[in-house]
Formats: sequence, structure tokens, C-alpha cells
Amino acid sequence: MKLRLILLPLLLFACFAGFGQTKQTDPQKQNSSVAEKGLIKVSIMYPFAEGKTFNMEYYETKHMPMVAAFIGSNLVKYTIEKGVASGTPNQPLSYMAIGTFYVKSLNDYQTAIGPNRDAIRADFANYTNITPVILISEVVR
Amino acid sequence: MKLRLILLPLLLFACFAGFGQTKQTDPQKQNSSVAEKGLIKVSIMYPFAEGKTFNMEYYETKHMPMVAAFIGSNLVKYTIEKGVASGTPNQPLSYMAIGTFYVKSLNDYQTAIGPNRDAIRADFANYTNITPVILISEVVR
Repeated sequence: MKLRLILLPLLLFACFAGFGQTKQTDPQKQNSSVAEKGLIKVSIMYPFAEGKTFNMEYYETKHMPMVAAFIGSNLVKYTIEKGVASGTPNQPLSYMAIGTFYVKSLNDYQTAIGPNRDAIRADFANYTNITPVILISEVVR
Repeated sequence: MKLRLILLPLLLFACFAGFGQTKQTDPQKQNSSVAEKGLIKVSIMYPFAEGKTFNMEYYETKHMPMVAAFIGSNLVKYTIEKGVASGTPNQPLSYMAIGTFYVKSLNDYQTAIGPNRDAIRADFANYTNITPVILISEVVR
């Protein structure tokens, strides 16, 4: 009887401790918590130049989701950014827009993109007249 | 007595359920869950060229943490990537490395960096002979 009186509160405490668990809220840890380190990042960078145009709405709502679907489960996440300014005085804006794909396997990325390359390239004309620069990099942090 | 026999297993089950809780694993939601959309992104991009060098270890362990500390609480996160290859055949690697800072306010970023610009530039020589290209962009996704 006495043993139960001791065990029951202990068990209740353990229950609440379990339900009350939260992840640490250190922003650096939280942001890196979905392990990006070691992933492959493919960056598609659209250089700025006079006369060049870029339709961000189409890119965000149509083009990137289309390519993301081709990549499938190998895709960890994708990002889009809009170039605003050069960070150096008297230097022109380098890129109007950059889209990136974080993938687990470069091989699988290339295998997925290969058969769809024509469709992807044909879609360029729907949002830009810029030929992008493509960078493959490894995520260090 | 019988009530306790029923309650105890139920309580034990509830405990394990509590401890066993895990977040939803949809990668897109989880990765965007720390709201990056609308943030300002400052990218420091180190162009590749023959004869250029870059010490990633120093960059990762010394330089980036130093600059991150200058930026302070305005900093949401910073990233580092190592250029591996061009994504286009017969095109050279565009960047050897890229470091980025995601901040809430561009003004506050510039205010924090300003007085420390000389220290930051003096530190370049400790890891690279490349003059970086700096891009200010807005996170769309």
C-alpha cells in the first residue's frame, strides 16, 4: 500500500516530464537541427544584366515546384531568394534571383533531372531570358 | 484493487506515449518552420580562379563566428558551403566557398558591421586571397 503511494506520484511525475519535453531553443541548433551539414546543394543563379528580366511569381509558383517534383524524395528542401543589391558600393547587383535544392545524393539528383532536362529548359522562357550559372556545393554548415 | 490494476497499465502507456512523441517529419514544413521568408540574406561569395586559395577550416572555426558575434541578435542563422563543381559541362567552378548571414534587419546588419569592417577585412588574409562578391537578397522561400 505504502509502496503504491510512493510509486504513483513518481510515475505521474515521469509522465508529465515526458509530455513536457521540448527541444532546445538555441536558434543555431534549431536551424541546423534538420541536419543540412553534408548535404549537396545545387544553386541555380540568374546573373543580373541590363535588359534581363525575371518573373519571380512564376518561378515560385510554377517552375520551382515542377523541378522539385522531378527530384522527389531525394530533395530535403528548396529555397528561393530575390537579389536586392550588391553589398559593395559601386558594384552592380550580381544576381536577380537564386534558387537552390538541398539533396541527399548528387547522383540521384542528376538521374532525376536528366530525362526532364528539356522540359525544364523549355520552361525557362516562361519566366526569364537569363541563362543561369549552376553551382554544386557541399553544405559545411 | 481492480481499479488500480486497470489504471496502472493505462498510466504506463500514457508515459511511454509522452516520451515517444516526435515532431511531424514533413521536411518542407520542418525546414521552413523557423520563418526565413522575408528575412534579408547577405551572401559573401568567393569566386574561383587559378591560383586562388581558401582555408575552410579557419573560415568555419574562426572567421564566421567572429562576424556572427558582431551581428548579434539580429542574426537568425549563418551558413557555409564549399564549392565542388559547376553544374554545367565545360564551365569552371564559379565559387570556392560561400558564407551567408540571415538577418532580420539590413540596417542593423550594416550598423553592426560598419565599425568592425577593418577587423573583418584584416582577417581575410588568414584564410583567403580571394576578393569576395557580396549579394544582398530577400528570402522568398
